Amino acid sequence: MANAIVSQSGGPTGVINASLVGVIEQVCKQKQIKKLYGAVHAVKGIVNEQFVDLRKVSKKILEEVAASPSSALGSSRDKPDRAYCEKILGVFKKYDIRYFYYIGGNDSANTCYIIDTMARESGYELQSFHVPKTIDNDLLVTDHCPGYGTAAKFVACAVRGDDLDNRALPGVKIDVVMGRHAGFLTAAAALAKQRDDDGPHLIYIPERPVTMERFLGDVDGVYKKYGRCVIAVSEGMCDVDHKTWTEKLAESAEHDSHGNVQLSGTGALADFLAGQVKGKLGIKRVRADTFGYLQRSFAGLQSEVDAKEARRCGRQAVLYSMKEQSGSVAIRRLKGAKYSIELFRTELANVAEKTKSMPDTFIDKEGNGITEAYIKYAMPLVGKLPRTQYLGNLPKV
Amino acid sequence: MANAIVSQSGGPTGVINASLVGVIEQVCKQKQIKKLYGAVHAVKGIVNEQFVDLRKVSKKILEEVAASPSSALGSSRDKPDRAYCEKILGVFKKYDIRYFYYIGGNDSANTCYIIDTMARESGYELQSFHVPKTIDNDLLVTDHCPGYGTAAKFVACAVRGDDLDNRALPGVKIDVVMGRHAGFLTAAAALAKQRDDDGPHLIYIPERPVTMERFLGDVDGVYKKYGRCVIAVSEGMCDVDHKTWTEKLAESAEHDSHGNVQLSGTGALADFLAGQVKGKLGIKRVRADTFGYLQRSFAGLQSEVDAKEARRCGRQAVLYSMKEQSGSVAIRRLKGAKYSIELFRTELANVAEKTKSMPDTFIDKEGNGITEAYIKYAMPLVGKLPRTQYLGNLPKV
Repeated sequence: MANAIVSQSGGPTGVINASLVGVIEQVCKQKQIKKLYGAVHAVKGIVNEQFVDLRKVSKKILEEVAASPSSALGSSRDKPDRAYCEKILGVFKKYDIRYFYYIGGNDSANTCYIIDTMARESGYELQSFHVPKTIDNDLLVTDHCPGYGTAAKFVACAVRGDDLDNRALPGVKIDVVMGRHAGFLTAAAALAKQRDDDGPHLIYIPERPVTMERFLGDVDGVYKKYGRCVIAVSEGMCDVDHKTWTEKLAESAEHDSHGNVQLSGTGALADFLAGQVKGKLGIKRVRADTFGYLQRSFAGLQSEVDAKEARRCGRQAVLYSMKEQSGSVAIRRLKGAKYSIELFRTELANVAEKTKSMPDTFIDKEGNGITEAYIKYAMPLVGKLPRTQYLGNLPKV
Repeated sequence: MANAIVSQSGGPTGVINASLVGVIEQVCKQKQIKKLYGAVHAVKGIVNEQFVDLRKVSKKILEEVAASPSSALGSSRDKPDRAYCEKILGVFKKYDIRYFYYIGGNDSANTCYIIDTMARESGYELQSFHVPKTIDNDLLVTDHCPGYGTAAKFVACAVRGDDLDNRALPGVKIDVVMGRHAGFLTAAAALAKQRDDDGPHLIYIPERPVTMERFLGDVDGVYKKYGRCVIAVSEGMCDVDHKTWTEKLAESAEHDSHGNVQLSGTGALADFLAGQVKGKLGIKRVRADTFGYLQRSFAGLQSEVDAKEARRCGRQAVLYSMKEQSGSVAIRRLKGAKYSIELFRTELANVAEKTKSMPDTFIDKEGNGITEAYIKYAMPLVGKLPRTQYLGNLPKV
């Protein structure tokens, strides 16, 4: 008999709580686990011994948690170094914690890896399991990441409605989507398209740097063809010198503790691009939105598949840990006409720190659009989208 | 036997198409109406004779239209003067149009009123009916406006999730909500609250001007109490000299053809307020989002009640017009424990041009929050919201 701990780290998602509930319900079935500590605010909560007793939460509350966005145990942006991890291990020893479940992205996998290695080195028996989550979909090994499908659904619904708005009052509309380095979430805008002339007409992702001239040329071309243009732009959109447009804009960019430039939650890029289109192309009606935190936190908009898989990943981490292995849970897509997956274990080191970008096959030749291969990949993760319709294209009488 | 025309004007909403479908299905039942023209892009489409035949649309497509955000016939921001209205009346005469259904806000009611008066003066028999829509909820006479409940639902879901995000990664979060003059939509953020310490902790609406000092003092107070602060701010938030913060910011504000300063779709206000909080209160984690066009166009997020009422208003306009009266359709809330409404006719002049603000009873004494009276008023219009939960408040072990 020993104790377990679970925590959630990094940017919340719409289904990170489903993974948490998966861990909780599976731990509750394990006879060899006595207590299940929930560390409040991730690693910060571990070193400060801010624990709640997760075995005491009712089934009803757990279901509400699983359906809720954000991290129910709180999160943290702390990126622990060796000394920090030593403290964490010290707390584990103090509380006789032998099972560590950490739900997070690549940085969290790395934290998990460091602690696991330290435990091994010091001869302390510890099973450390990373449960993947990120709206960016940029973790290695796994086919896709829990959290992505739900965020992608938000982006697709937003752009699908926004495109109709742009049909009603034509002009240029720019939507800035989260994603510093990988274009997966911005690509989800392509899922909004139902008809050939539907927006988004242009999609810009960090994987394909673009000059302002080229960007304006693209917009001009679409606007001349359709009399309107809907554009999805990644917040990490960058110039051919690989500097993001936002970096170029911000003379004094705020930095978060991971050393990434803070791009989310600011309207600067959207407003800048709108200004460029208005000023240089002379188009009158130009509007821009930055989707911001709603992409990861909007209440009541989970992708069903995503929520189920996230929960399954949480459960599976516990099952793997019973076999006394550490690792990260990953998703494998099975072959066949109908979408299905299986879970497998991968080494923590395989997921730690590194990230992946959109494969070339998902990006069109021009570098400003998304291919059918991506649609085929992403649609099952998002699930059924609301079908929309308009009437302006009926034959004139 | 005569012909009818229907059109949609102004900013689209999530249910303006439900009203359109209400008009179409009711017209199809009227034997005295021969053709039903849909004018594409509102008054612009009327003067340019850009018509589609709405009797030919299948039931299936109509249901998809009713469920879709935005204006299926397209919209326009044109605000017709007398000469423009003369042209419209000329087209009506040319096409033997005797029934005019115009779905829009107070400006559209005014257009309807001018054309109706002109028709009367020239002895042309015309029934002109205005069907109300606006996310701002600021039309006179009616208890509430179709379109409001759906936009309010978006704001409530967004803030409910955003508040959990802010619990997970505490700091100050500022959400800028649409509404130039009336605070109704911003007030909907209050519907997000489930528990006493839930956000939004502060709500600023145009009806209650505030100095920057007072704003910062409020934020400081909440932050000291809860260690975090979620704020909903109307885009029309103004200083005590009644100039909006955005006007003060924008040296060269773009103007739309109604003479209103263009506030939507820009991140300037949110970024400005975030900068003030960060700079003057020294709070490290400050984030801001501008909800933008998603509030009126997000696909698949209708309030059920709102969609039903919008459709009913469309149908009723047709029924009223059969009795040879012109006017605007309005909603009366009936007394009783359970929410219910009835529709009634009001004169076009009663709705034309003017707008209303939030009643004092909906605003708290401090001017930075919303009362229970508002919650009671608005909750039935929005319908059931997704219940959310978190675990950070469990007793520490």
